[in-house]
Amino acid sequence: MSGPDIIRISEIFGPTIQGEGALIGVPTVFVRTGGCDFRCQWCDSLHAVDSRFRADWRPMSAAEVWAEVETLSGGVPLTVSLSGGNPAIQPLGDLIRLGRDRGYRFALETQGSVSRDWFADLDMLVLSPKPPSSGMLTNWDDVAACIAAASGGGRTVLKCIVFDEADYAFARDAAARFPNLPMYLQPGNHTPPGPAESDGAIDTDGIMARMRWLVDRATADRWFDAVALPQLHVLIWGNKRGV
Amino acid sequence: MSGPDIIRISEIFGPTIQGEGALIGVPTVFVRTGGCDFRCQWCDSLHAVDSRFRADWRPMSAAEVWAEVETLSGGVPLTVSLSGGNPAIQPLGDLIRLGRDRGYRFALETQGSVSRDWFADLDMLVLSPKPPSSGMLTNWDDVAACIAAASGGGRTVLKCIVFDEADYAFARDAAARFPNLPMYLQPGNHTPPGPAESDGAIDTDGIMARMRWLVDRATADRWFDAVALPQLHVLIWGNKRGV
Repeated sequence: MSGPDIIRISEIFGPTIQGEGALIGVPTVFVRTGGCDFRCQWCDSLHAVDSRFRADWRPMSAAEVWAEVETLSGGVPLTVSLSGGNPAIQPLGDLIRLGRDRGYRFALETQGSVSRDWFADLDMLVLSPKPPSSGMLTNWDDVAACIAAASGGGRTVLKCIVFDEADYAFARDAAARFPNLPMYLQPGNHTPPGPAESDGAIDTDGIMARMRWLVDRATADRWFDAVALPQLHVLIWGNKRGV
Repeated sequence: MSGPDIIRISEIFGPTIQGEGALIGVPTVFVRTGGCDFRCQWCDSLHAVDSRFRADWRPMSAAEVWAEVETLSGGVPLTVSLSGGNPAIQPLGDLIRLGRDRGYRFALETQGSVSRDWFADLDMLVLSPKPPSSGMLTNWDDVAACIAAASGGGRTVLKCIVFDEADYAFARDAAARFPNLPMYLQPGNHTPPGPAESDGAIDTDGIMARMRWLVDRATADRWFDAVALPQLHVLIWGNKRGV
């Protein structure tokens, strides 16, 4: 199956809870698309990014994806999280319309490199510009275009991964550029799953130490507008996939 | 110092992040009052509840409490969490007005046994009716009176601690009684600090196992309106006080 309306799917799973950011704890079905225009050094979803895994990605129509979401949720409306990879490079407008007609809510998380007109149909757009530790460069005009595309729709929020002082400065800069958007800070996970699927072992103590540092850092600056949250799913389930 | 306007204070600390519920991750100064009309079996704040610790509670005026909050936050507005004990048995109306005049936001957490007219001045009222495992009985008329007192003010949300199947059924009943209020589910902490202040040792694995059970339980019921969150501060800092 191919064509402009075909979505490349890495995995569809849930319901479980959203583990991070503004919707933390909210029951969610995840639709993870395959393919990404970025290659972050600490990517925790390489199986949905690296073209090595392309054979695992299923080409699906919006109706086929929707049918799986509906089955997993038993037809009871909930939040659907569109993630990746970069889900913005996939044709997701039809899927969002199908679900919203049935009372489902849609959140999408992207680095902000590609904007789409259907961002305006989302309930939440999570923009996660990649900090220096990722090895990527952020084009702020592209991020601004995403914000503009989503305006008139649901909420737009920023989420920044913070590993170190340089990342923290990047997050402060991002917040200063877009002062009207809520900011979520997230300590980086330095033990993401390996490309061959690790056993899920994580350095919880290390992540928690970074979390404590991040809280201390932000409160010392009296940066009280930023919300700080770790990746809860990693703490609860480790780096296991499908939860 | 005594009199009707005197607040009994157990501790004032922060800024740190709120560790649980609707404001999880939000920078917060905590004002914990002393004294409680309940005696929950698993109380994690006995130092603010048991009259054994009454000598540690400071009688303070609203202006004195406000001065400490302002010093801790450097005069930069943030969220102030009023907790206890049961803060609803204290005269907190003046404190809330003092802070709100300066741009601060106020959340209050209570079991819902005592309603006050100044609930309408809160930015968030967290009603946490106590489940069967607490050994307490909930009077739903009292809870409804709290909701009515806060109406016209900020948001009111429900939070239920869940240790077991009976607590889960209690939470479902609470949600059914007040279907318009957001519901937050929280796995119980069976290793709260002892009255003599333990070393902060907690059974993280046990809490996380209960969290996984809770997520599975709620999603199996397709209860997608409830948000499930553990006590993040316990995971980050253990049972240590003052963070």
